[in-house]
Amino acid sequence: MATEDGMDGGLEGNVLVAQSGGPTVVINSSLAGVVQESLNHGCIGEVYGALNGLRGIANGHLVDLAAESQHVIRGLRHTPGTALGSCRFRFQPSDLENAFQVMRSHGIHYLFLIGGNGSQIAVQLLGEHAAKIGYPLRAIGIPKTIDNDLAITDHSPGYGSVVKYVATTAREIAIDDQSMGDYNLVSIIEVMGRDAGWIAAGSVLARHMGTPFDAPHLIYIPERPFNDGEFLTSVQRVLENNRYCLVVVAEGIRNAAGDYVRTSGIKDPLGRTELGGAAEHLQFLVEQHLKIKARTTKLGIAQRAAAHCASLRDNEEAFQCGVRAVQAAVAGATGKMVTIVRENDSPYTVSYALADLADVAGKVRKFPDAWIDESGSMISSNFFRYVSPLIQGEMEVPYKGGVAEYVHLQGGKQFETNSGQR
Amino acid sequence: MATEDGMDGGLEGNVLVAQSGGPTVVINSSLAGVVQESLNHGCIGEVYGALNGLRGIANGHLVDLAAESQHVIRGLRHTPGTALGSCRFRFQPSDLENAFQVMRSHGIHYLFLIGGNGSQIAVQLLGEHAAKIGYPLRAIGIPKTIDNDLAITDHSPGYGSVVKYVATTAREIAIDDQSMGDYNLVSIIEVMGRDAGWIAAGSVLARHMGTPFDAPHLIYIPERPFNDGEFLTSVQRVLENNRYCLVVVAEGIRNAAGDYVRTSGIKDPLGRTELGGAAEHLQFLVEQHLKIKARTTKLGIAQRAAAHCASLRDNEEAFQCGVRAVQAAVAGATGKMVTIVRENDSPYTVSYALADLADVAGKVRKFPDAWIDESGSMISSNFFRYVSPLIQGEMEVPYKGGVAEYVHLQGGKQFETNSGQR
Repeated sequence: MATEDGMDGGLEGNVLVAQSGGPTVVINSSLAGVVQESLNHGCIGEVYGALNGLRGIANGHLVDLAAESQHVIRGLRHTPGTALGSCRFRFQPSDLENAFQVMRSHGIHYLFLIGGNGSQIAVQLLGEHAAKIGYPLRAIGIPKTIDNDLAITDHSPGYGSVVKYVATTAREIAIDDQSMGDYNLVSIIEVMGRDAGWIAAGSVLARHMGTPFDAPHLIYIPERPFNDGEFLTSVQRVLENNRYCLVVVAEGIRNAAGDYVRTSGIKDPLGRTELGGAAEHLQFLVEQHLKIKARTTKLGIAQRAAAHCASLRDNEEAFQCGVRAVQAAVAGATGKMVTIVRENDSPYTVSYALADLADVAGKVRKFPDAWIDESGSMISSNFFRYVSPLIQGEMEVPYKGGVAEYVHLQGGKQFETNSGQR
Repeated sequence: MATEDGMDGGLEGNVLVAQSGGPTVVINSSLAGVVQESLNHGCIGEVYGALNGLRGIANGHLVDLAAESQHVIRGLRHTPGTALGSCRFRFQPSDLENAFQVMRSHGIHYLFLIGGNGSQIAVQLLGEHAAKIGYPLRAIGIPKTIDNDLAITDHSPGYGSVVKYVATTAREIAIDDQSMGDYNLVSIIEVMGRDAGWIAAGSVLARHMGTPFDAPHLIYIPERPFNDGEFLTSVQRVLENNRYCLVVVAEGIRNAAGDYVRTSGIKDPLGRTELGGAAEHLQFLVEQHLKIKARTTKLGIAQRAAAHCASLRDNEEAFQCGVRAVQAAVAGATGKMVTIVRENDSPYTVSYALADLADVAGKVRKFPDAWIDESGSMISSNFFRYVSPLIQGEMEVPYKGGVAEYVHLQGGKQFETNSGQR
């Protein structure tokens, strides 16, 4: 922690911060936290950002974040995407030499990586290599993922906001579906979640029991095998009592054999199968077998970019994770990830701690069995106490000319075209 | 207009108001306008709402709107869907006898129908039949459609809000796409628009020229035949200068032969082909022919239900259309639709007028040729002056427990389950 005169007596050096993996609407808030807190510590000189995550560290594509205006740094608090650019790039041991050359030449002794699982593996790798070669480096991971599947931390920054948006959207779609109920209607919303059902489960917050808007009626997550026949039976059961049936489905649902119910057959740059069509699969089943109209909405990237509907609490926690990372590093920590520790549900209070990267990297936290109800197609009310605090408060976004207004780094010019990157 | 003492000397009678067709986020604001203005006129007694639109008029499923609380009527101003329920039901001449029986037994002499094209045909029919049988009825249509395809009126309530949401979402997705640009990426957003490209065209407001977020780069609307090869060439051209290509496509794009590029093969209750898969068709083209990753987002019902991102101006105009309909009817008008007349672009000012239903019913206003640029895949800047005023101002929605909070009619109990309707 900084002393009154701003002198820490800590390791003297510059900061390098990077963002990695898929964006969330609060990942830039963590970046703002790192930048703002770095300025509070006399032992820290320059604050650099690596463009396009790990790739920028290896390639030496850095920008001077301290040169950015206050307007831009403040604007990061509500801007979606990753202001520094991200990547789907796995740090290979062969990139290590380049990365340490870059850090050495820029006097970098503080490294912060804001990211999910894969990013935490990279932080671990860099920290271990630094120790091995005797390079003084404080490497700290800052959690980020809409998927909420990071271990140890109570929840991950980014998750609360996606749930707030998905729940609000599900409620709005429910109201529209209810309006059109002069014939049976099935409405299907596909949300993200390749391996874990955290996002789909969060849509349960849209339910407004005791009103006509008690939807979603069915929620399908990857933690339970999806069965076509059981799904159709469940839809019919819902339509006996309701004028419509709203279904929320995670993109990654699989059948009993463990196969995705439908895939596009395309592989992403990491060789992972691109998912697509969970909603279309359910739509097909309903229309072919029940002869009932089914509509689909696929929120896609919108759900992790909807900064105009972000959780204020999530945003503040994301910022704090950035701040705490800098404080921990100045105090001497390395090879750790910042975690959020829930102290109390109601009133909701948290503290921040550090986890060993070995306990986080490569681990996936599934949605707990205890929060899935017996039917396998609804989330139990026990989950409410966990998730509800995470979506509280509305982040205000400025609008200009009627459209939400976001910032971009002025120093990131070379990051605007392909030519600067290749 | 009401005189000072609230006495109009107008036709004495009760009001019946109904909502019809697909919802918008401001159709309930028009309903609130009708209810609130009706209370200002001494010649108006009861204010009834018909459940499920035209079907409720024919079946006599009415609710007493004057019995609803102030809280509910105020809440309608920001609640999506149709509070009275809607329908996809075409009013047949055989339903007329029932409808007039219902109106006669409830002393209804003022009829307001909030809806799009099909609804205006029904208003015309009811008005003409009233004249024929000598039943005193003032029948006025109130415009409503996200599609903005109603004739005569400068624009339709509902359009500004869907454009505000689509443009904000397109900008947010652009920022996310930009973040991930360590490899080429094509991102496709499918929006509504079966016959007209108004909604897709409105996404042009997301563009933020001179920044990295100058997307969408390509916009495809039904007014221009879609050509697979030209599309692929355009995508490649965009990717020469940008790290990603954001495409917005209307669901109703057709090839040169006039066929939808992809349909689900399913028919809706009116026998119209269900569209589906415009985005998937483009995704397929990009992935198969260019071997570039393509992502899709299908906003579906979310776009016409996103009250949390509604245009304040659109909302106020929708309310005013309800108010003006009542004022016109009390003053003696019938067989008309309220229209919005643009007086000036900047500063934007409008007045309200009445159009003959014969000039509106059954007409479709296409997106003007002059606003499509030469390439056929971008909207010209001339369109900005028209559309920009329509999305100004942010409608504030209350949040409760972290989720946007909406109202429902207390009198609409029978409307909550199928059993009450059948």
